[in-house]
Amino acid sequence: MADRVLVPWRQNRDNAPHGMRVSVYDGEGDPPGDLSDVGFFVVPYGRNQRVDLIERMPQVSVVQVLTAGYERVLDVLPAGATLCNGRGLHDASTAEHAVGLMLAAQRDIPRWALDQRAHSWDPYYTRSLAGTRVLVVGYGSIGAAIEERLLPFETEVVRVARRARPESGVHGIGELRGLLPDCDIVVLVAPHTSETEGLIGAEELALLADGALVVNVGRGPLLDTSALLAEKGRVRAALDVTDPEPLPSDHPLWDAPGVYITPHVAGGSQTFYPRARAFVDAQLRRWAEGTPLRNVVR
Amino acid sequence: MADRVLVPWRQNRDNAPHGMRVSVYDGEGDPPGDLSDVGFFVVPYGRNQRVDLIERMPQVSVVQVLTAGYERVLDVLPAGATLCNGRGLHDASTAEHAVGLMLAAQRDIPRWALDQRAHSWDPYYTRSLAGTRVLVVGYGSIGAAIEERLLPFETEVVRVARRARPESGVHGIGELRGLLPDCDIVVLVAPHTSETEGLIGAEELALLADGALVVNVGRGPLLDTSALLAEKGRVRAALDVTDPEPLPSDHPLWDAPGVYITPHVAGGSQTFYPRARAFVDAQLRRWAEGTPLRNVVR
Ligand SMILES: NC(=O)c1ccc[n+]([C@@H]2O[C@H](COP(=O)([O-])OP(=O)(O)OC[C@H]3O[C@@H](n4cnc5c(N)ncnc54)[C@H](OP(=O)(O)O)[C@@H]3O)[C@@H](O)[C@H]2O)c1
Ligand SMILES: NC(=O)c1ccc[n+]([C@@H]2O[C@H](COP(=O)([O-])OP(=O)(O)OC[C@H]3O[C@@H](n4cnc5c(N)ncnc54)[C@H](OP(=O)(O)O)[C@@H]3O)[C@@H](O)[C@H]2O)c1
Repeated sequence: MADRVLVPWRQNRDNAPHGMRVSVYDGEGDPPGDLSDVGFFVVPYGRNQRVDLIERMPQVSVVQVLTAGYERVLDVLPAGATLCNGRGLHDASTAEHAVGLMLAAQRDIPRWALDQRAHSWDPYYTRSLAGTRVLVVGYGSIGAAIEERLLPFETEVVRVARRARPESGVHGIGELRGLLPDCDIVVLVAPHTSETEGLIGAEELALLADGALVVNVGRGPLLDTSALLAEKGRVRAALDVTDPEPLPSDHPLWDAPGVYITPHVAGGSQTFYPRARAFVDAQLRRWAEGTPLRNVVR
Repeated sequence: MADRVLVPWRQNRDNAPHGMRVSVYDGEGDPPGDLSDVGFFVVPYGRNQRVDLIERMPQVSVVQVLTAGYERVLDVLPAGATLCNGRGLHDASTAEHAVGLMLAAQRDIPRWALDQRAHSWDPYYTRSLAGTRVLVVGYGSIGAAIEERLLPFETEVVRVARRARPESGVHGIGELRGLLPDCDIVVLVAPHTSETEGLIGAEELALLADGALVVNVGRGPLLDTSALLAEKGRVRAALDVTDPEPLPSDHPLWDAPGVYITPHVAGGSQTFYPRARAFVDAQLRRWAEGTPLRNVVR
């Protein structure tokens, strides 16, 4: 019977329900043993390319990825197998990085870092986060977590999702252009789809006030890189994701005025790991007990 | 009668109660007219050295400073005159910078800024703010504002003031050493007094866990600079205030491992100005109406 479980962390094996056959596989090299007996495969985090192993698991009944995205798995998942994703596990990490980018940009933290390297003490009055109006484009799981963190900073948050939900104060994406002129900060945190590609292009940027800030923690292609470069610093940006990504060393975005870049590190900070381990523990418990799994996406 | 008012901003003159004699003086050069008729002097922000003008205002009945500190004014204030400070006006600005420093240090924002300058895309997993225990040393007006902003980040805040207030969960400073080993972040936001000088020295730093972070937005001398340097990066620090200050360009603190520096910019960001102008407007109204002034410190 295909009941062996492959987990990325030793702790998951130690915490597994009594009698469960568990092997630890962290994504390095080849997994232990013949894989035909694997029934539950937790794809190691940061190693989504290991989904190619699924072809050697004809009997697999559950595949668990620890990312929000799972497009790649759909191609190799056997018919009848269940796929679960990591929705929610990255919320705290991604939301705090988004707010960190806003604070860094408003309070000129990168500038002070460069001044420090130059041993230069040269204070001036910076912008604040307090008193700003922040447009959250992609008011989903992470968007709501961003809002929760922003509110005590005396900001006003305006919510935008694909479809309007007037009863919960969420605007539809069709209203975006009308909302852009009055906001100080736009946070992009929608998924990358054919609809969201180039969501913020030249026309949208032109609607923003001088000095407005675009924060992208969603996916690079949501923001049109050439259009941002053409703004020449009139609109500022703090980007955890870029298009292209990784950003080649000769790309003009690196030196663009008013643009700050972090290398796609919003979701993967240390707070993710205990959450992810505990989530895997709980999924194995549910599987053993026959109770419904969480985060089923197919 | 000494009823002329000196205000730093034109808006205060425009909003002044009908009939009040108001002159605008922003601290540049000499103030308008003979000063013997000045009854209310608002010391321009960032120009506390202008308190020397008080000697030319024998009839002054109110002096208003816009900073929290006012030691300098006490020496020149005529007997019987009232002194008001700027307590509360800097809270939002200082608290958001303190949280900005914590996020910057946990999420390595200064490192990404240096990588950006080098055109280097080199991600790794950073620390998080989520899941940390933060000790606020100086749980006053700004300390409470820091706590309010921290809580949605899934942190635990431990409060320390001069005297314990068990009914509101505030520890006394005598308990500090017992609290240090279990915290991830210590924020210093107490005033500089003979009691707080060197509050965090070699012995206190030694009690902190490896990699713990000390944030100082209070005053430089609260943290012993030599003791911090002796830690050689075992304990990290994010400092808006330093000792000495300004930091000379040849000071070893600039290049100390794990130390981030901003040049005393926490309190003075743009959000301060509308607050300060509105506060001065309200003080003038109270003075005209004969109702009690706010923030009276003598
Ligand atoms: N930088 C990082 O390290 C990192 C880490 C984790 C996640 N992410 C990115 O963040 C994205 C959001 O994650 P999540 O967990 O918050 O997802 P989620 O809960 O599914 O929320 C996605 C939100 O985007 C909205 N949306 C979808 N299409 C849209 C469109 N065409 N226009 C406007 N809004 C649209 C959805 O609107 P409806 O509610 O109306 O459907 C929903 O509110 C992920 O897809 C991923 O790309 C980045
Ligand atoms: N970096 C900047 O730009 C900036 C801007 C504004 C202010 N600041 C600094 O921040 C300080 C705090 O401002 P605030 O408005 O929050 O003042 P506050 O409301 O008066 O609060 C000060 C707090 O410090 C505590 N304290 C005093 N002596 C102490 C001691 N020996 N040990 C431990 N705690 C002690 C007080 O405890 P009790 O309640 O028990 O008396 C009180 O909780 C200011 O004094 C200033 O130095 C810095």
